[in-house]
Amino acid sequence: MDALAAAFTWFDYAAVAVFGATGALAAAQRKHDFVTFAFFAAVTGVGGGTLRDLLLDAPVFWVGRPDYLIVCVAAALAVWVFGTGHARMKVLLWFDALGMAAYSVVGAAKALSLGAPPFSALVMGVLTACFGGIIRDVLANEPSVLLRREIYVSCALAGAGVYVALDAMGLRDVWTGITGFAVAFSIRAGAIRYGWTLPAFPGRGRPGGS
Amino acid sequence: MDALAAAFTWFDYAAVAVFGATGALAAAQRKHDFVTFAFFAAVTGVGGGTLRDLLLDAPVFWVGRPDYLIVCVAAALAVWVFGTGHARMKVLLWFDALGMAAYSVVGAAKALSLGAPPFSALVMGVLTACFGGIIRDVLANEPSVLLRREIYVSCALAGAGVYVALDAMGLRDVWTGITGFAVAFSIRAGAIRYGWTLPAFPGRGRPGGS
Amino acid sequence: MDALAAAFTWFDYAAVAVFGATGALAAAQRKHDFVTFAFFAAVTGVGGGTLRDLLLDAPVFWVGRPDYLIVCVAAALAVWVFGTGHARMKVLLWFDALGMAAYSVVGAAKALSLGAPPFSALVMGVLTACFGGIIRDVLANEPSVLLRREIYVSCALAGAGVYVALDAMGLRDVWTGITGFAVAFSIRAGAIRYGWTLPAFPGRGRPGGS
Repeated sequence: MDALAAAFTWFDYAAVAVFGATGALAAAQRKHDFVTFAFFAAVTGVGGGTLRDLLLDAPVFWVGRPDYLIVCVAAALAVWVFGTGHARMKVLLWFDALGMAAYSVVGAAKALSLGAPPFSALVMGVLTACFGGIIRDVLANEPSVLLRREIYVSCALAGAGVYVALDAMGLRDVWTGITGFAVAFSIRAGAIRYGWTLPAFPGRGRPGGS
Repeated sequence: MDALAAAFTWFDYAAVAVFGATGALAAAQRKHDFVTFAFFAAVTGVGGGTLRDLLLDAPVFWVGRPDYLIVCVAAALAVWVFGTGHARMKVLLWFDALGMAAYSVVGAAKALSLGAPPFSALVMGVLTACFGGIIRDVLANEPSVLLRREIYVSCALAGAGVYVALDAMGLRDVWTGITGFAVAFSIRAGAIRYGWTLPAFPGRGRPGGS
Repeated sequence: MDALAAAFTWFDYAAVAVFGATGALAAAQRKHDFVTFAFFAAVTGVGGGTLRDLLLDAPVFWVGRPDYLIVCVAAALAVWVFGTGHARMKVLLWFDALGMAAYSVVGAAKALSLGAPPFSALVMGVLTACFGGIIRDVLANEPSVLLRREIYVSCALAGAGVYVALDAMGLRDVWTGITGFAVAFSIRAGAIRYGWTLPAFPGRGRPGGS
């Protein structure tokens, strides 16, 4: 159980770091200064988990302890130092996929640990996974990740769903979390590489196309 | 009093459903998949009430019980199945008006039931009514309903104001809620049909027009 | 100590009023009606402090008392009556700078008074100072103040940092707050007048410039 708790702590740091890096990369695209890098890294890194904790009425996880925000600043520093070559947009996409997959599990796990029913835990997994990136895109004035065609929310839903289902069956070790993460990440990886989509709404869209 | 509570529950479901439908319609305009439909329906359907509950430090109404989110998914399904014909944009506007009117009353009523003073209840009615649609528009990258010329916030203000005033006079039956709803909806209906506006700021606007 | 508390109350009103005025000015640019003026004034005026209180799990400061929202409505009325001449955009910038500087101190001070550690108080100062304006820009569909080149977040960071550092040294009188305010405002003033920036990210930005 201690190993489980430790594993989730590392999962959590990793999710904050990679989401933080995507925030810094968004700042890099507009050639901002380092403070703005760190601000975007922090908002993106802890945004989803903050919404989760507010909704669950739990103490917000990063308030009162510096470690999570230091992870965000470190992620911003890494982006600043190592720069962004030709592959920048791709790196952002893949980091975002890692963060989304990790947070879909971490969000559901925290909700379950606070006694939320499975259905709510599923929703918290999806929200935690998706809102950091949404806030980043809204603040950076970019079209949100929600508006792209390839599946995104569905991947978080699958990852959180597998995790919650395994937990309901009594499987509560490190591998449960890794399985949920792997499911979410694999599906998103397919979406990025092969443009996987779900069937689009068959009716008419915006007049004049979109 | 039981009839009153039951009436408000149905009001609440109805507001969630119609706002949820407007979220799904926003997703339909861009021909998204069903998971995105459901995500937009949920965020729009419960967004205003979520903000209200966070501000009032009350447990968020949909966390821990599946019914409200199931209503949102059902609304998304209805939009998916029944489609969106020529009248799509109009349907969205009218559903939005229904949701706004219902939430202006539900938001004020919940605040009063938690012991908030009348002034705060008025503000909660307006916020609950307006924020679901605002979040939908921000996430869908559309100009927010706030930025249109015809009155919107004013309708919610009128509905919540009438409800709070009647409540302060000791009138606390189903008709109080229906009256507030009718006031908000009627004014918004006039705004949609006849383009009702309040006097615009008489000073100079953005240089080079708006 | 009473003088200190009174001074912070006035700081707080002043920050709400000037941020509220920037919200109303944003509404004025699009020639909105008075209710929309007041709505923007309220969201901008109390937005940053609302986020701070939610994160600290404190009662949201304006819920349950009408004074702060009345300050916002008064600020909206002032903008409506006194209008916006040639210098409008400049006025908005300078009011925003005053609000940012005041809130960087007020946010940090409230966090410290609730027992938050210095690091969290610093972050709360920055968030309180920056989020009102960010919400205003997102709702008005303008590029956020975050996306401008001249320093902004850095000014709030400096003001909150000086305040938290002086507080940690045991200096807790009115002048501590005024010093923090002066540091934040002076740096922002230099940024507005002379276009002060921090070194931009040296790597490549968005392909094709930005």
